[in-house]
Amino acid sequence: MKIVRTVHEMHAFSKRMRNAAKIVSLVPTMGFLHEGHLSLMREAEKRSDVLVVSIFVNPIQFGPGEDYEAYPRNFDRDKEMVERAGGDCIYAPSVAEMYPEGYQTRVQVAQVTQNLCGLTRPTHFDGVTTVVAKLFNAVTPHVAVFGEKDFQQLRVIKQMVQDLNMDIDVVGMPIVREADGLAMSSRNRYLSPEERKAALSLSQSLFEAREMVLSGEKNTAVLENHVRGKIESTGMGRIDYVKVCDTLTLQDCSRIEDEAVMALAVYFGKARLIDNIVLRTG
Amino acid sequence: MKIVRTVHEMHAFSKRMRNAAKIVSLVPTMGFLHEGHLSLMREAEKRSDVLVVSIFVNPIQFGPGEDYEAYPRNFDRDKEMVERAGGDCIYAPSVAEMYPEGYQTRVQVAQVTQNLCGLTRPTHFDGVTTVVAKLFNAVTPHVAVFGEKDFQQLRVIKQMVQDLNMDIDVVGMPIVREADGLAMSSRNRYLSPEERKAALSLSQSLFEAREMVLSGEKNTAVLENHVRGKIESTGMGRIDYVKVCDTLTLQDCSRIEDEAVMALAVYFGKARLIDNIVLRTG
Repeated sequence: MKIVRTVHEMHAFSKRMRNAAKIVSLVPTMGFLHEGHLSLMREAEKRSDVLVVSIFVNPIQFGPGEDYEAYPRNFDRDKEMVERAGGDCIYAPSVAEMYPEGYQTRVQVAQVTQNLCGLTRPTHFDGVTTVVAKLFNAVTPHVAVFGEKDFQQLRVIKQMVQDLNMDIDVVGMPIVREADGLAMSSRNRYLSPEERKAALSLSQSLFEAREMVLSGEKNTAVLENHVRGKIESTGMGRIDYVKVCDTLTLQDCSRIEDEAVMALAVYFGKARLIDNIVLRTG
Repeated sequence: MKIVRTVHEMHAFSKRMRNAAKIVSLVPTMGFLHEGHLSLMREAEKRSDVLVVSIFVNPIQFGPGEDYEAYPRNFDRDKEMVERAGGDCIYAPSVAEMYPEGYQTRVQVAQVTQNLCGLTRPTHFDGVTTVVAKLFNAVTPHVAVFGEKDFQQLRVIKQMVQDLNMDIDVVGMPIVREADGLAMSSRNRYLSPEERKAALSLSQSLFEAREMVLSGEKNTAVLENHVRGKIESTGMGRIDYVKVCDTLTLQDCSRIEDEAVMALAVYFGKARLIDNIVLRTG
């Protein structure tokens, strides 16, 4: 398996693969891989001849006071996992390689970035679209696979790819959960045992909301209140948002007509966890 | 010669060429082609197997009150010129194809966009980088050729390509001038015979400034005053700016150490003309 550290090398590798008529896939990650990432790699492998996994903790998508420095890193373990999963290349540039002195370009998606995580992390998605554009240009994949846990991120990236006419198939994969329902996340390691237990209220309340919709509840305020109540009853979660939105525009919706996404972000201690579920009326 | 109107078709054409191991070049234009554009095409052909010329008058790089509607267009004449010049493909998407409903993405270069044309056209370069990113992604050229008349545009695009890790060789070509020195521009057709004559003061004063520098003048205020004086003495030009800047950062400089660019923008009637010259001390 190839380890690539520079844009120049990455271009050369990708060009060689493409010239050999290979289909190239990319799974962009911030490392500290878990079963969720592995599910993305498996899907990417199904769809390609050459799997590139990028590992880069992207400073510009973290706001002031967020966990950029603390974000868990373990390259050797990640490398072993990618190798075992059949990856062909890890692209792991340094921060100086990605943002050298004089760096000054941003990619911005205006509308689908505004709600949800965009409300309390106003510069987050500019950082995401900028780094993903860079990774796409460095790797030039035919297909890129992202997790649906970051529902808004996936929506934002699809919008960028469409708007900027990138010739890349962006695929979303279902959330992978622990046996008890907690959505897998590199940030789960921040949780104390008590927080870990209380964090179950996220997935459990979302599953309950799904059942309520199937039973006829269409008023999103009722659903949101149910979820908020369940999380607050743990006495530990500090809610950033709980919202029901249109799956395409990500605008708030007050009634569920056909389908909608219920998304939430909740702090447990220093861990900010996100989760979501698509609600369908039938 | 192929005429392509959609992103989808453009991707397919480019993929076919790349899969056949052809080197693809792009000359992005707003049409109403002149000898300046032809010089770009000739250079692009030297460097590639397949020449794509894009023709698109990009609404988002025009500000309110600028000449988007009036900008000269003549597709049949352009088509003939590209064909005669040996072009292989014209990419001429509609505005609705480029900016469909729901479009919401921008590419922004922060620093080299601020001075010169950025001072009075604050949204111009966001429009340029966004459309050029889209054209690059649609055509996926190996090489793209731009004119040096738009000195700042070329600098901005090189910065974008480097920052976003695009695997594209961006080439700048010298300004092509009329026999009497006026820089070629599609906007020259706006000029009345009197304005056309007065507009000669632009290139003539720039040439004089170059001579002054070769004779030892290093004070940029002296050079700028000379150029301003010559343009104002025509009684017709309304100066937007006359500046001497660092060729890389495009920051104003007060003394010429080694080299610098002298750039100007001047209105003659409704025509806003730009020109520039690189000043070297020896």
